[in-house]
Amino acid sequence: MRDVHVELGKDSYEILIGRNLGAELQNFIRETGFSEKALLISDTNVGKLYGENVLRSIREAGLSAELIMVPAGESSKSLQQAEQLYTAAIEHCLDRKSPIFALGGGVVGDLAGFIAATYMRGVPFVQIPTSLLAQVDSGVGGKVAVNHRLGKNLIGAFYQPKRVFMDMGTLDTLPVREIHTGLGEIVKYGVIYDADFFDFLEKNADKALSLEEMAVQHMVARSCEIKADVVSKDEKEGGLRRILNFGHTIAHAIEKETGYVRYNHGEAVAIGMIGAAYISREMGAARDEEVERLERLIKRMGLPMRAGGCTTDHMYRDIFHDKKTVGGRVNWVLMKEIGNVFVTDDVPEAVVRHAMDMVTEKA
Amino acid sequence: MRDVHVELGKDSYEILIGRNLGAELQNFIRETGFSEKALLISDTNVGKLYGENVLRSIREAGLSAELIMVPAGESSKSLQQAEQLYTAAIEHCLDRKSPIFALGGGVVGDLAGFIAATYMRGVPFVQIPTSLLAQVDSGVGGKVAVNHRLGKNLIGAFYQPKRVFMDMGTLDTLPVREIHTGLGEIVKYGVIYDADFFDFLEKNADKALSLEEMAVQHMVARSCEIKADVVSKDEKEGGLRRILNFGHTIAHAIEKETGYVRYNHGEAVAIGMIGAAYISREMGAARDEEVERLERLIKRMGLPMRAGGCTTDHMYRDIFHDKKTVGGRVNWVLMKEIGNVFVTDDVPEAVVRHAMDMVTEKA
Repeated sequence: MRDVHVELGKDSYEILIGRNLGAELQNFIRETGFSEKALLISDTNVGKLYGENVLRSIREAGLSAELIMVPAGESSKSLQQAEQLYTAAIEHCLDRKSPIFALGGGVVGDLAGFIAATYMRGVPFVQIPTSLLAQVDSGVGGKVAVNHRLGKNLIGAFYQPKRVFMDMGTLDTLPVREIHTGLGEIVKYGVIYDADFFDFLEKNADKALSLEEMAVQHMVARSCEIKADVVSKDEKEGGLRRILNFGHTIAHAIEKETGYVRYNHGEAVAIGMIGAAYISREMGAARDEEVERLERLIKRMGLPMRAGGCTTDHMYRDIFHDKKTVGGRVNWVLMKEIGNVFVTDDVPEAVVRHAMDMVTEKA
Repeated sequence: MRDVHVELGKDSYEILIGRNLGAELQNFIRETGFSEKALLISDTNVGKLYGENVLRSIREAGLSAELIMVPAGESSKSLQQAEQLYTAAIEHCLDRKSPIFALGGGVVGDLAGFIAATYMRGVPFVQIPTSLLAQVDSGVGGKVAVNHRLGKNLIGAFYQPKRVFMDMGTLDTLPVREIHTGLGEIVKYGVIYDADFFDFLEKNADKALSLEEMAVQHMVARSCEIKADVVSKDEKEGGLRRILNFGHTIAHAIEKETGYVRYNHGEAVAIGMIGAAYISREMGAARDEEVERLERLIKRMGLPMRAGGCTTDHMYRDIFHDKKTVGGRVNWVLMKEIGNVFVTDDVPEAVVRHAMDMVTEKA
């Protein structure tokens, strides 16, 4: 079992990474002064697999908990779904010290976290992320949100969990495409922060793809450590935290242009990282062999390198509507070399368009 | 002009209290690095009186701002209204550094503050509270919220404004009943924290009721100072902040039983303070003359001392559903003497019921 500490002053918390963490969950509940009433929020996929088991653990630890399953999929991240969960919380008599547990992937974590952040102005939040992507991405950092019909994650908050439990067992039932998408974000951590970790990923790609327990546990733990390190230095995304956005500017445009269905998040980020690497090369920041190393590892991890169904014109327009675009300036995260990135808002339009041309498939 | 500093570390801010604060507002906007796009949220009452004027000030300071008026009244504090405001923010292209200004009473401040707290996970919030109650109560402390159909303020956050402008000029158009309701909360600050301020209120009640400028300005400033002092010691309501709840446990029950229409908030709080004083006396904590002094000042300020339309049985049940009731224990704020209160969750049912009997009008 690994334990990652996220240092955020009085909002600090621990991430436990291992297998069969039911006893750890129960000890945590018994040691913490929660009120008796609790809610376990999951979705119709994950809830059916693991809901009853987790619910039993929570109840055996002394809480009066109810399991609520929202429909699986992004459409549950809505204010309408949130309103139904507030109603459930009120009807189940949750008070200010009642914990809300999130059992699921990114959608469940973001939605349940938004409820926890806003119900009675904030109640304790406990995360049990069950997908590889959620474990290394949305499970760390305190970003919670629901979508607006005009854009993703436009309604949300920064809200830290009390503890996070990452059970490797839940990866066993994950579709292989979801493993790849998680690996996309894991590769990102190597690029932005840790060349040694990137080396490790190159050497252990096969183990990652076959979910070899110790390799995956290390990849999850190291990714969480890196994200925790970045977030603890910049909780609210004023500066350093922007590097976590490597690959995401183009990724968001790809997701938007393809209606959020053709590529999942990690796939779009993989293509976006390649695009950012091309921009870095054209700007003279990164050498060719660094860019090629990134391309090779992304390909090895089963991820796409080109996006279909997008045009450069539309993608170029989209980047100015990104949530991270402030005052009309796009903050690009570019690569100097593996393990070393920087942020700049000074990239010529032609360079961006050229990179977009290169990462889009021509019809 | 008075300036009250609210000390909350990196979330600290200033409250300016005076008349004709347009120039101060403009200087603040020019000095702060906001993005160009901004939203001014008001309601159909206040917006018609002061909206265009404030909008002009904001625009002259260089921002591209739009005025949005929600229907006046508590029903605008809904998730549905919030969703419309998110849409307006997106369509007007507000980004993460775009300020949201709230011009109005408690409803507008709570609603606009909730939007500011959650749009793109939080954008700068500037408050211009226009009612006496909002100035001394909801304008300080960072509580923002919307209502759920099952209860008031159940969906919200703690979110601090960047600055607060309290213009005495906006009180000139306030209905007299709204002046009284503000004075109810002002009396509360004397009781919970400052016997000298209570003396001042006794000596200056006539000036308060006739809105004599210097007297009212001092009452607003001193109330804000006291609330700021309490909130800075306990931002998230873990301990000391509970004393701000003096009179509110019974007040919330009165508001609920009378459908939030018969009594406004300050009136319900006035009756609730009397109830809390009766409990304090019966518990042997407060002497008779202290209780009578409070009764006299509340009456002098034009506030009711008894509630019609409520029964003790229903009110007693209601207090266990209050947002501040945790683990089934009601935290009572009781009086030792004017200027000195304490919190206890150990009050016998019979004592509570007796006080409720005394503050309710028999049909």
